[in-house]
Amino acid sequence: MSDNTSSSAGPLDVVGIGNAIVDVISPVEESFLAEHGLVKGAMGLIDAERAETLYAAMPPAEESSGGSVANTIAGVASFGGTAGFVGKVRDDQLGEIFTHDITSLGIAFASRPATEGPSTARCLIAVTPDAERTLNTFLGTAGLLGPDDVDEALVMRGRVVLAEGYLWDVPSAKEAIVKAMDHARSAGNRVALSLSDSFCVDRYRDEFRSLVNERVDVLFANEAEITSLYEVDRWEAARDEVRGRCEIACLTRSEKGSVIVTADEEHVIPIHSHGDVVDTTGAGDLYAAGFLHGLTTGQDLERCGRLAALAAGEVISHYGARPETSLAELAASL
Amino acid sequence: MSDNTSSSAGPLDVVGIGNAIVDVISPVEESFLAEHGLVKGAMGLIDAERAETLYAAMPPAEESSGGSVANTIAGVASFGGTAGFVGKVRDDQLGEIFTHDITSLGIAFASRPATEGPSTARCLIAVTPDAERTLNTFLGTAGLLGPDDVDEALVMRGRVVLAEGYLWDVPSAKEAIVKAMDHARSAGNRVALSLSDSFCVDRYRDEFRSLVNERVDVLFANEAEITSLYEVDRWEAARDEVRGRCEIACLTRSEKGSVIVTADEEHVIPIHSHGDVVDTTGAGDLYAAGFLHGLTTGQDLERCGRLAALAAGEVISHYGARPETSLAELAASL
Repeated sequence: MSDNTSSSAGPLDVVGIGNAIVDVISPVEESFLAEHGLVKGAMGLIDAERAETLYAAMPPAEESSGGSVANTIAGVASFGGTAGFVGKVRDDQLGEIFTHDITSLGIAFASRPATEGPSTARCLIAVTPDAERTLNTFLGTAGLLGPDDVDEALVMRGRVVLAEGYLWDVPSAKEAIVKAMDHARSAGNRVALSLSDSFCVDRYRDEFRSLVNERVDVLFANEAEITSLYEVDRWEAARDEVRGRCEIACLTRSEKGSVIVTADEEHVIPIHSHGDVVDTTGAGDLYAAGFLHGLTTGQDLERCGRLAALAAGEVISHYGARPETSLAELAASL
Repeated sequence: MSDNTSSSAGPLDVVGIGNAIVDVISPVEESFLAEHGLVKGAMGLIDAERAETLYAAMPPAEESSGGSVANTIAGVASFGGTAGFVGKVRDDQLGEIFTHDITSLGIAFASRPATEGPSTARCLIAVTPDAERTLNTFLGTAGLLGPDDVDEALVMRGRVVLAEGYLWDVPSAKEAIVKAMDHARSAGNRVALSLSDSFCVDRYRDEFRSLVNERVDVLFANEAEITSLYEVDRWEAARDEVRGRCEIACLTRSEKGSVIVTADEEHVIPIHSHGDVVDTTGAGDLYAAGFLHGLTTGQDLERCGRLAALAAGEVISHYGARPETSLAELAASL
């Protein structure tokens, strides 16, 4: 058993709120996307029927725990940080898998599994030969996350509280999450938000803009997301737009690395390669893990960015959205 | 969708009978085995309670379809061969995963999932840093495979019918399988047997000796299994003992390669490396896939052995017990 420092009642480095999802990952040919009307690189929400059809068409798969913020939290734990997670599973086999994988990392996860209703969420991930991943999420019981599932006591323990944009697709959870963010801020803790997906930004642009202005301290966004948020064509324009709206904006740029922007600082961080890029699933999630681990352990922004690049580089070097190597060990030689 | 040539009623290259299992694979430290009383490299049967305890102690895992003969059948399909599988799952999420993975390869799998009783079988696999795997199998519903589950019409379609020694741990299935073997032989088809595990051989030594003498045409055994079968210390003595008892004995020897023995021939086959050895799960199963694909497509024994080594080499170069690369493509350049 690992040291489970997260199960006591003390403060935690990061507490995440997100969709509890099991990933179902298959390598596919390019033509698969067109045949099934999928937009490469995007996340599409699918219902149970569409999930069944799509799964039937997919080659043999491997299953592992996923979910954007859950991946980040797993990454924080791999760095040796303390963490908690709020999300909703059902009392089914996929729910057991998700719960096992997150608790075996010493992460505080106090979900009461739903005993009825739709099954645990799954994400059918098609990985094309260019290592790009296309996500098809059946939200299942995660789509019913409600105020009763958001354990405020746990949320309040986080030095940083991280939420994912994808949660805005879960209407029953929104209000509780915004409330949790306000509690966290009033307790002097930081609030972080990952924008998740450019189509998700499209769906909730106004809400996300307000969040960034009023409630978010640390924002994570890739190029498509930040340009969508501010409806500009050029990344540089989006960067100028976001500057100063929140304390820290972490803007990832795929193979161009990332840029960390505050009101009066800007740090350009190169990528950190761990060999061939196999599957980009989890790249942004693990970037956030490295950054938040650095931030919660008092590192300067430059080193936070390098830890972020390190974790992102590890996770894209293999299939699956969580680290296969101890990030604490990798970080020791950084 | 792949061409599903196995779903018509014509002959199939290989029909397998085995335990339908989903693998749960975790990398562990050496000390994990001693702490939990596990014998490295062996397969231990565990009950539901022990499965829960062991799973709780394991690090985060990846799930993928497994089962010894099912892996072989998946390998035959990856070579482009036609195949069928007989095994028992429940109507749960792991059963859906197993069924999806095997049918999406075009393999004929006509199992009616059990609607009650224990869950689909899972194998908790602890992979140590030396790439050796230690298996802990909760048989679940697979342990209830009975005569009604053995589809004789499907079995009779196989040019080769392959069974795994592990099935002898399933008392309800034994008689049906031996009967199926006899039907196959009387129809002029071959019967193959994989001895599975040296402890399994210990449990059923007399039965396996009789099978090899009376019903088996092609035998697969590693060093521990064949020396256990004949209760000799030296591999050479076991080889001399088995020669001529069945048509073909395929004796695998880990990094020493393998030896194919008939009454009057002996072929020494070197290993085929695909880079670093990561996880030896499925090595023997995929060896059998390559050999049987060669045999059912009329190759000579030397090339059958080289195809076997090729498939085994691929599967040990990554986590998981099934090929990640098209074996047909790899074979084309052999």
